[in-house]
Amino acid sequence: MAKGFTSREEDYSKWYNELVVKADLAESSAVRGCMVIKPYGYAIWEKMQAELDRMFKATGHQNAYFPLFVPKSLFEAEEKNAEGFAKECAVVTHYRLQNDPEKEGKLRVDPNAKLEEELIVRPTSEAIIWNTYKGWIQSYRDLPLLINQWANVVRWEMRTRLFLRTAEFLWQEGHTAHATEQEAIEEAEQILEVYAEFAEKFMAMPVLKGLKTESERFAGAVETYCIEALMQDGKALQAGTSHFLGQNFAHAFDVKYTSKEGKEEFVWATSWGVSTRLMGGLIMTHSDDNGLVLPPRLAPIQVAIIPIYRSMEQLEMVTEKTLPIKAALEAKGISVKYDDRDTHKPGWKFNEYEFKGVPVRLAVGPRDLENGTIEVARRDTLTKELVSIDTVDSYVPDLLDDIQISLYNKAHAYREENTTEVSTYDEFKDRIEGEGGFVLAHWDGTAETEEAIKKETKATIRCILLDSKEANGKCIYSGKPSTKKVVFAKAY
Amino acid sequence: MAKGFTSREEDYSKWYNELVVKADLAESSAVRGCMVIKPYGYAIWEKMQAELDRMFKATGHQNAYFPLFVPKSLFEAEEKNAEGFAKECAVVTHYRLQNDPEKEGKLRVDPNAKLEEELIVRPTSEAIIWNTYKGWIQSYRDLPLLINQWANVVRWEMRTRLFLRTAEFLWQEGHTAHATEQEAIEEAEQILEVYAEFAEKFMAMPVLKGLKTESERFAGAVETYCIEALMQDGKALQAGTSHFLGQNFAHAFDVKYTSKEGKEEFVWATSWGVSTRLMGGLIMTHSDDNGLVLPPRLAPIQVAIIPIYRSMEQLEMVTEKTLPIKAALEAKGISVKYDDRDTHKPGWKFNEYEFKGVPVRLAVGPRDLENGTIEVARRDTLTKELVSIDTVDSYVPDLLDDIQISLYNKAHAYREENTTEVSTYDEFKDRIEGEGGFVLAHWDGTAETEEAIKKETKATIRCILLDSKEANGKCIYSGKPSTKKVVFAKAY
Repeated sequence: MAKGFTSREEDYSKWYNELVVKADLAESSAVRGCMVIKPYGYAIWEKMQAELDRMFKATGHQNAYFPLFVPKSLFEAEEKNAEGFAKECAVVTHYRLQNDPEKEGKLRVDPNAKLEEELIVRPTSEAIIWNTYKGWIQSYRDLPLLINQWANVVRWEMRTRLFLRTAEFLWQEGHTAHATEQEAIEEAEQILEVYAEFAEKFMAMPVLKGLKTESERFAGAVETYCIEALMQDGKALQAGTSHFLGQNFAHAFDVKYTSKEGKEEFVWATSWGVSTRLMGGLIMTHSDDNGLVLPPRLAPIQVAIIPIYRSMEQLEMVTEKTLPIKAALEAKGISVKYDDRDTHKPGWKFNEYEFKGVPVRLAVGPRDLENGTIEVARRDTLTKELVSIDTVDSYVPDLLDDIQISLYNKAHAYREENTTEVSTYDEFKDRIEGEGGFVLAHWDGTAETEEAIKKETKATIRCILLDSKEANGKCIYSGKPSTKKVVFAKAY
Repeated sequence: MAKGFTSREEDYSKWYNELVVKADLAESSAVRGCMVIKPYGYAIWEKMQAELDRMFKATGHQNAYFPLFVPKSLFEAEEKNAEGFAKECAVVTHYRLQNDPEKEGKLRVDPNAKLEEELIVRPTSEAIIWNTYKGWIQSYRDLPLLINQWANVVRWEMRTRLFLRTAEFLWQEGHTAHATEQEAIEEAEQILEVYAEFAEKFMAMPVLKGLKTESERFAGAVETYCIEALMQDGKALQAGTSHFLGQNFAHAFDVKYTSKEGKEEFVWATSWGVSTRLMGGLIMTHSDDNGLVLPPRLAPIQVAIIPIYRSMEQLEMVTEKTLPIKAALEAKGISVKYDDRDTHKPGWKFNEYEFKGVPVRLAVGPRDLENGTIEVARRDTLTKELVSIDTVDSYVPDLLDDIQISLYNKAHAYREENTTEVSTYDEFKDRIEGEGGFVLAHWDGTAETEEAIKKETKATIRCILLDSKEANGKCIYSGKPSTKKVVFAKAY
C-alpha cells in the first residue's frame, strides 16, 4: 500500500496529503475547500470528541445548540469580532430556488425570494450566543453559565488543506459567562489546561502553553491562550485556543446581571475551541513514511489479528485459538479486529493495518499453534516479537500503554531537539530558514517588530510562554530592551 | 412553576409551546424559524443520539461527515429530489462582507465576492453523498456501503414550531449503497425496525409501521417506509422515515459497480433519517398539565433527591444518610441529582423537578431519619409512598423500569382507544372533525381521492400498514373497490 507513497523528506506537504487520502481519513469534495471526512477518519474524530466531551462535563460544562445562521445585524454588533471574520463569511441571501425558465430541468435562485436581512453562516458563534445569553442572565444566580456546543462552522479560506484549513470544519466552541473578571480568566486558563492534557495524554502530542500577542489574538478577545505543537517539518501548529473576552460581548449585546448587592454589572466572558484541525496535528506528529501512526488511546482499531492459513482446516484451527484472545482483550476494553476476510492475502492485510496506523498487529499461523506463540508487531517501531499465546492477553494491554508513552516521548524529544534559543537576528534567520522548529528570542513587545520579522522570515510569534522566566535582554530585531524571550516559528 | 401554565384542554398548541420553553428544552432564536436547543433539551437529545448511534453501529453502519453545502449543479442532478426541496432552500451566493461605505461601523455583502455557482445549504444530503460515492464504489467488494451522518440541515419552512418544524434542525441521515434491489429493500426495512424499536423501547412511544402513498413519498424515493405516532390531541406525528431509493441516485450520479461476474451494474440505494422532531413526539406523547413527563431511559436526571431541613445540623444528618443512597443508585447506572442548594426551598424544587419531568423524586427529612423511611414520588402518576431507607436503592431501579413500561402502556392504550375503523365517508368526517386519532378506511388507491379527502377534511393518509390484512371493500370516498384499509389522520 505504501508503494508510490511520497516520503516526508521528498515532499512533506505531498506526503501529508497522500497520507490523509490513502489512509481513508478524508478527501476533497465537490465544494471548494470543503472536505469529506471518511468513516475511518471520522471514527478517530469521534474518539477525540468523546474524550473532550467527558472532560468538559467533568469541569461543569453542559452542551447546547445554537443556530447555524447569524443575522448580519447581530454579526456586526461586536465590531472587532465582525471585522476579523468579515472577509471569510459565507452569506445566505435567498431562501428559494425555482425552475430556470431558460434551461429545462435546471434550477435558479428565485429572485423574489431575497431575504430582507442577509444571514451569515457562523464562522464562530459569539454573536448569536451572546444575543441569546441576554435573555438567560438576569441575576448572579444565573452565573456562571458554562456551555459548549459541537458544531460545524464556515470560514471562507482561499488556501485550504485537508483537516488543517478547510472552508467548513467541525469543532466545539465553549461560551461561558461569569460574574467576575477573575473567574472568567480562571475559566480560560482551566480550559487551556484541559486542552493541553487532552493533547498530551490522548494525542501523545506535546504542547507549549502560552498567550498570543495582540496581533495574533482572536478578534474580539482581551487575551488569547493557546497550545502550540511542533510538526515533523519544523513548523508549528496552533492546536487550540481559549479566549478571555473581557466584557466586549456583554457590552455589544447589553448583557448585565444583578449582583448579590443588587448592583447591575456587565458580565465577563470566555470562549474556546478545538476543531478537526487536531486531526492534522495528530497525523503529522506521529506518522512516518509507512503511513499513519496512531496513539492507542485514539485508535479506532487498537489491535488487528490476522490469521495465516493455507487451508480451511488451518483457518478453523487458528480461529478457534484466536477468538478467545480477541474476547479476552475486548473484555479489557480494547478494540480488536479479527480480519479473516478471504478476499485479501495476509501480506496485503499487514500493509493495510500498517498504513492505517493500527498500533498492534497480531499474526497467528499453524506453526504458531504448534509452538504456542503469536507474532506481535508494534506499529510505532515496526518491530516484531514472539509472545506466548497464553500470556498475550496480558501482554497486549501493557504494550498499548507502552506505545502511548513512547509516542509522546518521541514527539517530546523531537520538540526539545528542535527548540533553540538565539540571541541575534542572524542566528534567528539561519534557524528559521534552516531546520525551523521553535525559536526562542527576545522581542521588544511591539507589533511593528513582530510584523517586520514576519515579513522578512515568515516566522510568527507562536506564543509568550505561560511559564517563561523573566530575563533581561535585547530584542533580536530592534535591539531594544526586552524582559523575556518569546516563541517564534513558521506555522500552519 | 406550573402556575400560569396553559392546560392541554385549554389550548393544546399553546400548552406545547409553553412547556418547551418553561421546561428549558428550547426557545426561538433571533433567526427566523431557527431554535436554540437549551442544555436540558440537548441532554435529552444526546441520550437519543447515543442510543440510536449504538443501534446503527450494531447493524454495521459507520459514521462519516459530508459538506454542509451542495453546489447547485449537483443539487439539481436528481430531478425529483431537487424539485421536492427547491422551494425550501437557503442559498449562499456570496463569500465575503465588507465595510458599508454608507454606514459607518456596519457591514454589507461584498458585491465583488459573488460565487460563480450558488451553494445550497443541504436540506438533505443525497446529492453531495452520491456524488462522493461515485469515487468510492467500483467493485462488488465495495458494497454494501453503510454510512450514517449526524448533521444539521436547513429547510426554509414558512410555519415553524419548536422541535416539530424548524428551518434548521439536527438529524441523522443514513445513506447506503447495495449490489441488489433486494438487499436495499431489506436495509430500508431493517432501519424501520430500528426506528420502531427505539421509539417504543426508549421513547415509550408506540408507533405504526407502514408505507407512504406515492404523494407522501420522499422526493426521489421509490418507496418510503415510516413510523407514525399518535399525539394526545388526536393528531399524528411522522416520527421517522426510511427510503428505498431504487437506482435513481445511481443513475443521476452515474454510480456503477462491477459485479462478481464482471458486469457493470447501477447501484441500489437507501436513505433514512430521524431528527430533533423526535423531541416533539417525546414531549407530546407523555407530558401533562403539570409539565414534562420523561421516560426514564431518556431522562438526563432519572432521580432527584431533595433534603428537607430547617437547620444546618439537620441538613448534615440528612446528607450523611442520603449520599450513600445516591452512590448506590449511581453504581447501578442511574443518574441522580442531589439538590441541596440553599437558594431555593424544597417546595420550589419539587415543582421544578415535576415540571422538568424527572421520573422519580426522593425527599428525606429529619422525621424520615427517625422512622427509617424515605418519600418516593413518581412523576408519571404523581403518587407518593414511603419506602424503607434500607431498601430504597433496590426499590428505585425497579420503579424506573415500571415507569418506563407504564408510560408505554398508557400511550399504547390511548392509541388503541383512538384508532377507529369506519366504512362510510360520513363516519370518517365525524371522526376526523371530532376526536381525531387514527382512522382506518378503505381507499381506492388513487392520488385524486387522497387529494380530495385531504382538501375536504385536512386528513392525510399516514401510511399503508405493513401488517395490514387484505379485505375487500369499497373506498369511502369514491365507492370504487379497495383491497385494504389505510390509516388516515390529521398530522403535524
